Amino acid sequence: MAEDYRAMWNSLGLNLEAHQGLLAVLSDGYQSIYLSQKDRPAGMQYFDFVISEVHGLRIVELLKAKTEGKLIVGTFCVYVPEELILALDGVAIGLCAGADVGSEEAEKYLPRNTCALIKGFMGFKLAGLCPYVESADLIIGETTCDGKKKAYEVFDEITKKMYVMELPNKKSDDGRLLWRNEIKRLAEKLSAVTGRQITLDKLKEASRIVDAKRQALQRLSNLRANDPTPISGLDALLVNQISFYDDPIRFTAKLNELCDELDERAKKGTGVAPKGIPRVLVSGSPMAIPNWKLHSIIEGSGGIVVGEEACVGERNFRDLLGSFSTVDEAMEKMADRTMGINCACFTPNDGRLADISDMSQRLHAQGVVHYALQFCTPYLVEAYMAKNAVEAAGMPFLRIETDYSLEDAGQLKTRVEAFIEIIRQGRGS
Amino acid sequence: MAEDYRAMWNSLGLNLEAHQGLLAVLSDGYQSIYLSQKDRPAGMQYFDFVISEVHGLRIVELLKAKTEGKLIVGTFCVYVPEELILALDGVAIGLCAGADVGSEEAEKYLPRNTCALIKGFMGFKLAGLCPYVESADLIIGETTCDGKKKAYEVFDEITKKMYVMELPNKKSDDGRLLWRNEIKRLAEKLSAVTGRQITLDKLKEASRIVDAKRQALQRLSNLRANDPTPISGLDALLVNQISFYDDPIRFTAKLNELCDELDERAKKGTGVAPKGIPRVLVSGSPMAIPNWKLHSIIEGSGGIVVGEEACVGERNFRDLLGSFSTVDEAMEKMADRTMGINCACFTPNDGRLADISDMSQRLHAQGVVHYALQFCTPYLVEAYMAKNAVEAAGMPFLRIETDYSLEDAGQLKTRVEAFIEIIRQGRGS
Repeated sequence: MAEDYRAMWNSLGLNLEAHQGLLAVLSDGYQSIYLSQKDRPAGMQYFDFVISEVHGLRIVELLKAKTEGKLIVGTFCVYVPEELILALDGVAIGLCAGADVGSEEAEKYLPRNTCALIKGFMGFKLAGLCPYVESADLIIGETTCDGKKKAYEVFDEITKKMYVMELPNKKSDDGRLLWRNEIKRLAEKLSAVTGRQITLDKLKEASRIVDAKRQALQRLSNLRANDPTPISGLDALLVNQISFYDDPIRFTAKLNELCDELDERAKKGTGVAPKGIPRVLVSGSPMAIPNWKLHSIIEGSGGIVVGEEACVGERNFRDLLGSFSTVDEAMEKMADRTMGINCACFTPNDGRLADISDMSQRLHAQGVVHYALQFCTPYLVEAYMAKNAVEAAGMPFLRIETDYSLEDAGQLKTRVEAFIEIIRQGRGS
Repeated sequence: MAEDYRAMWNSLGLNLEAHQGLLAVLSDGYQSIYLSQKDRPAGMQYFDFVISEVHGLRIVELLKAKTEGKLIVGTFCVYVPEELILALDGVAIGLCAGADVGSEEAEKYLPRNTCALIKGFMGFKLAGLCPYVESADLIIGETTCDGKKKAYEVFDEITKKMYVMELPNKKSDDGRLLWRNEIKRLAEKLSAVTGRQITLDKLKEASRIVDAKRQALQRLSNLRANDPTPISGLDALLVNQISFYDDPIRFTAKLNELCDELDERAKKGTGVAPKGIPRVLVSGSPMAIPNWKLHSIIEGSGGIVVGEEACVGERNFRDLLGSFSTVDEAMEKMADRTMGINCACFTPNDGRLADISDMSQRLHAQGVVHYALQFCTPYLVEAYMAKNAVEAAGMPFLRIETDYSLEDAGQLKTRVEAFIEIIRQGRGS
């Protein structure tokens, strides 16, 4: 840490001693997983810096924004339209959920058989380790899965900050209408909390900022289609994770700089790994910081991850909001854009199978690793459909069910190595 | 079995050998759990007979109904309006889901960490052990929980019979509207499948039949308020379970006969157990036939179950549809009636806490046992809220999480005995 943030963390009510321990563990993990990589793009230095200051400088910025009257809004899900938050002078941030922290405390409130991500956001809060949840004025949840939907009720009891949007279960006309109205209600809620009116100009500006971020992320995604791949899956995952935390304008500029560099690499035919090494598409549950487990195992086993069909990944940026000429039209477009995201919380969710196929082709993936957090029922069940679809297309498929612990790392590595070997020998079809 | 049904089971594609084994196990279980009870009402003989013929005579009836042009409709949930099915000359039946059957087969399709009920309906089908799923022309699912919502996609692949209704996640105006439209769409679907039109007269007749069944079940529930209780919780649970399988007119008549007998008992002050023994309300996940585990343990530990705040229980019959003068009005009332059911799939679901409190008072319960199937996330999370509410009211609360196996029976018995002892000593408040 460049500065001593202890006074700030103390004022936020964090558990200083435990927090210091957490940062030390994260720093060690980052060192061994990220900084040990070879031939990293120079543009990753910015993102390394962001991570090193993720509980420091970024929190200083958020608290400064608060004093300037900005609303700090915590979110958990790509269905929540970031444009709306920005249009009302809000700052949208993800909340801590990617590490096995405070789970003993969390289990006093939630069932043991809860996914690691949900236990994570509850545990981070209860253990006093998440400066984001403490900085947030409002936290927006959504009814994506049973675990989150019900845990938010408990989380509201603890934080008194929850506002939950209802996402439907089917992509029907009625479901879309319900969701469109939920977006309108969120706009009203944000207006009421901030005392500001939403205007077309503000919304256009917000949309430009968020769409520019999405376009930069699309650019990164497309660059990964090159062979050799100019950036590791680990680094690309990190950039995607940081997109939920960083200032969006600065983030976009820095990501475009990185992409310029990757463009150069692609032109020269250089990359982070030799041409021809097995290319893997990862598909499934979201990976919150610092959940780098699966990518680390795949790339430590001689493969390279070329894409994430996931919410921390392609689902977050594939579709732009685009232009609109009234606030109402913008709301309709927000509803349409988000309804185009193919989360396993919907039934049926055939669109996701098409997404896996499209991404595999575009990114020249040679195998699909399906990632589901343990107890993440929607993705665990959908793994069955994904397996059938991927194998019918002649591609190898590996199903991983895991949590944040490293207990199964050895076993996973053995399975992933065997999978990489299958790709290498072209035994998919 | 009174007759040899093997030809029928064979024609339905059941696995005859395994089915014979299942029936033998069920018969033994029924003998030891049910027929060993003391002072059972004579009126239970009918229900004993129904159970003994649940895969026999009742299937004969269903197949006969089919030849008469009736539609056999399988359902899983009290949100599906039975009136609609009956109004279109359909027969509504529950599907097998209450035993640990075919789980190895089910786990080829579903995650291991799936609740016993879902694994049950999948396993019964895959193992060729459920004559109901084979007899059904149509199976109606609903989006109540992640497990069912996603498993129905797989179940449709296997059965080609699924029709899934979308239940919203919140009881908002928009959610109610969406659900009202889903009820209308179900009516259209049933019309399309049967080639019949829904008429006001047919719907009124159907509603009278179903409301009469609900009133008889209400009558049974109210009789359990007496001390001594005139019927065991086990027998009352069985009657509730059978309400999902039996012919509704015959069932209602037989249940009213039973209630007449229980009325007599109440007047005389006689019952199935001594006056003053600890009275327990069970609340939580549904218990499908032959899941009698918890009631058996409670009543084998010196307590008596006086009510079920559950779908196989009070939620199924508490509210009547009542009168209506147009088909449209009936649809509105069906939407209102079902939206009054407080399932943990909704967020928030405070109404359920009020229901637990109301039932406890009306039935003079002295403690609440919260029952959740393992991996049943909605009820497992809500157990936290239920505990706080019940204990704040000065009542003892016991949280049970279990599946269909008997492995934990000894441990559960120890916990239940301790709980009964707490009630006995009046140590709740």
